[in-house]
Amino acid sequence: MSIDYSARVARAQATLRDSGLAAVIIGTGAELAYFTGSWNTSHERLTCLVITPDSVTLVAPMVDIVGFAADVTKVGWADGEDPYRLVADRLPAGDVGLGSSLTALHVLALQALIDGETTPLPSGLFQVKEPFEAAELARAGAAIDAVHAQAPGLLQAGRTEKEVAEDLAELILREHTAVDFVIVGSGPNGANPHHEFSDRVLEPGDPVVVDIGGTLDSGYHSDSTRTYVVPGGEPPAEFVAAYQAVHAGYQAGIAAVAPGVLACDVDAAARGIIAEAGWGQYFTHRTGHGIGLSTHEEPFIIAGNELPLAEGMAFSIEPGVYVPGQWGVRIEDIVFVEAAGAKRLNLQPTTL
Amino acid sequence: MSIDYSARVARAQATLRDSGLAAVIIGTGAELAYFTGSWNTSHERLTCLVITPDSVTLVAPMVDIVGFAADVTKVGWADGEDPYRLVADRLPAGDVGLGSSLTALHVLALQALIDGETTPLPSGLFQVKEPFEAAELARAGAAIDAVHAQAPGLLQAGRTEKEVAEDLAELILREHTAVDFVIVGSGPNGANPHHEFSDRVLEPGDPVVVDIGGTLDSGYHSDSTRTYVVPGGEPPAEFVAAYQAVHAGYQAGIAAVAPGVLACDVDAAARGIIAEAGWGQYFTHRTGHGIGLSTHEEPFIIAGNELPLAEGMAFSIEPGVYVPGQWGVRIEDIVFVEAAGAKRLNLQPTTL
Repeated sequence: MSIDYSARVARAQATLRDSGLAAVIIGTGAELAYFTGSWNTSHERLTCLVITPDSVTLVAPMVDIVGFAADVTKVGWADGEDPYRLVADRLPAGDVGLGSSLTALHVLALQALIDGETTPLPSGLFQVKEPFEAAELARAGAAIDAVHAQAPGLLQAGRTEKEVAEDLAELILREHTAVDFVIVGSGPNGANPHHEFSDRVLEPGDPVVVDIGGTLDSGYHSDSTRTYVVPGGEPPAEFVAAYQAVHAGYQAGIAAVAPGVLACDVDAAARGIIAEAGWGQYFTHRTGHGIGLSTHEEPFIIAGNELPLAEGMAFSIEPGVYVPGQWGVRIEDIVFVEAAGAKRLNLQPTTL
Repeated sequence: MSIDYSARVARAQATLRDSGLAAVIIGTGAELAYFTGSWNTSHERLTCLVITPDSVTLVAPMVDIVGFAADVTKVGWADGEDPYRLVADRLPAGDVGLGSSLTALHVLALQALIDGETTPLPSGLFQVKEPFEAAELARAGAAIDAVHAQAPGLLQAGRTEKEVAEDLAELILREHTAVDFVIVGSGPNGANPHHEFSDRVLEPGDPVVVDIGGTLDSGYHSDSTRTYVVPGGEPPAEFVAAYQAVHAGYQAGIAAVAPGVLACDVDAAARGIIAEAGWGQYFTHRTGHGIGLSTHEEPFIIAGNELPLAEGMAFSIEPGVYVPGQWGVRIEDIVFVEAAGAKRLNLQPTTL
C-alpha cells in the first residue's frame, strides 16, 4: 500500500483555507487513520490530531506517542497534565472544526479553551476517494460478493438465522480481516432493517434479508445486501410485488448517479419508483451512505442533502420495503461515481 | 440478574435536583446500558436517553425503537427528520449534562438547540456500585484470576508474546463472554504500558508484564496485571529492586483506601513509596481507574482528584515502573471500597 498521508493533510489544509476555519481537531478511529495510518484508541485520555493551515500536530498520551509511526509533530502528555491546554496552545484564533469521533468529554473541555466557535468538520474531507481507495473498495466489493455467492446454499429450511449467520461470519473472515455485521432477517424479522439474527427457524418460502459487511486489512469496508427466498416453498405474492418495486427503485437510483447530480435527487429517483408502486410508506430509511474507512460516512443519499455528487465518491444504493410483522426486502450495492455515472462495486445478481 | 433500572433513573433524577441541572442526555454504550440494559449502537444516527427531574425519554431511529425493551417513553425518528429538535422539545430551560459517549456531531447539533450551558455529566452517576454490581465485579475478578493462575505455565522461553497472547485470549473466553485486551510485554516491550504483544521471542529471565481483561455476560469488566519472570534464567537485579518498590507502592495504595480518603491521596501513597525508592520518574501513569460497565470510568486515582472515596466504589490500584529499552513492572488489582477499607477483588499472589 502506498498512501500519501502528507497529500491528505495538504488537501485538508487547502479545505481549511477555503472554509475560513483556523484549524480542525481530528479524534481517533477512521479519521485519524485517514491522515496518519494509525488506529490508536483514545477513550477518556485525549488523543487528537490538530491540523492548521500550516502545521499538523499529534497530541496524545506519552505512552502512546512512543509507537506512533506517522511523520507529524508529536506532543505527549502525562497523566495529571492538561492535554486540552496543549491543543489550545497550538490553535490560531478563529473557528475550529471538530472531528466526529471526539466525545463529549473532550468536546466540552476543548470548547472552554477555544478562542472562536466550534463546528463540525468541513464536509468533503474524506468523501472523494483516491485511486488507491477506489481499488480497495473494489477489492472489498469482490470480497463480500464471494460471500453472497455462497449465501443461497446456506439458507435451507430447518436451519436457524443464527446458524446461517455463523456460517456467513466464517465466510466473511476468509475474505476480510474482520466481520463488521451480519444481518439474517427471515420472515417478519426482515421487516426490522436493523435486526441482526435470532433463533428463528427458516421455513420454505420465507423471504430472508441478508446484509453483510467486513473490513479489509487496509481498513476499507464492504457492505452488500441481497434478499433471498428459502427453497421448497413460494414466497408471499405481495413480497414478490414489493421485491420488483425495490429492484426498480434500486435500478433507478443507480441510473440517477452522475457527477453534478444532487444526492437528494438520487434518493428521490429510487424513492419515487417505490412510491409509485404503492410501497412508499414502507421505505422507511435513506437510500444510501458513503463508505470508506468508516462503514457509514459522507455522502448521505437522503432527502434534503443538496450535495452535488463528484467523481470519486463511493456510497451505497440500498432501497428497501419493510412490512411490519410480515417480511422485508432490501437490495444494496456500493457504487463508485465515474464521469459516465455509477460503477457498481458489487456484482452479484439482483433479481429474485 | 435483577437490576432495578427505574431506581437508577430515580437516583440520576435526584442528582439532577441536587446539581441544578435541567437534564442529562445519555448517549449509547455503557451509559445507556446502565440506565436501560440496552447496548444499542448509534453512530451518525442519534440515539440518546433524555433524563429530566420528572421524565425519561429514549430518542432513537424508528428502526431501533422496535427492539428496545426498557420501560421508558420512546420517541422514534425517521431518516430525514431532525432528531435534535425532538430532544430539545423535551428539555426544560437550563443547563444540560452531556453523556461522555456522545460524539462531536451530536454534541454540536444539540448545543445549537439547548437553552442553557452544556456540561459533562455530574460526577458520581455510576461510581457507587449496587450490591448486584459489586457481586458481578467480584465474579469478574475471580474469572481473570483463573486466567492469571495459568499464565506462568504459558511463559516458556522460545515462545513468542503472540503465542502466549493467543493462549491467554482463549483462556479469557472460557471465563468471560468477550476478550477486552491482552498485553504481553516481555523485556523492553514491558517498558511501554500500552504495548499489546509482538513476535518477540521470550528469553530465560525476561520480565513479562501480563495485563488482561474481559467482559462478563452482564457487561461488567475484569482487569488485572501481574509481572512474571520467564523460567530458566535470572532477571536483571535492577528489575528485582523495582519490583519490590512497585509491590510496596501497590500495598501502600491499597492500605490507603478507605471511605472519606481523597482519590489523590491514594495515588500519593502508592507514588510516594515508589519515589522514595528512587523509581518515581519511571512511574509515568496514574495509580488507577474506576471499573464497571466500562473498563475505565470514574473515579480516577490520580494527582489532583480531590474526590472523597465512598463505600461501593470500585477501581484499580496499578502502580508501575517502566525503564525505556529495558523492562517494565506493573501489579494491578481491582479493589472495592468497604467501611473497613479496600477489599481486593483479585487474589492472585503479588510477590515475584
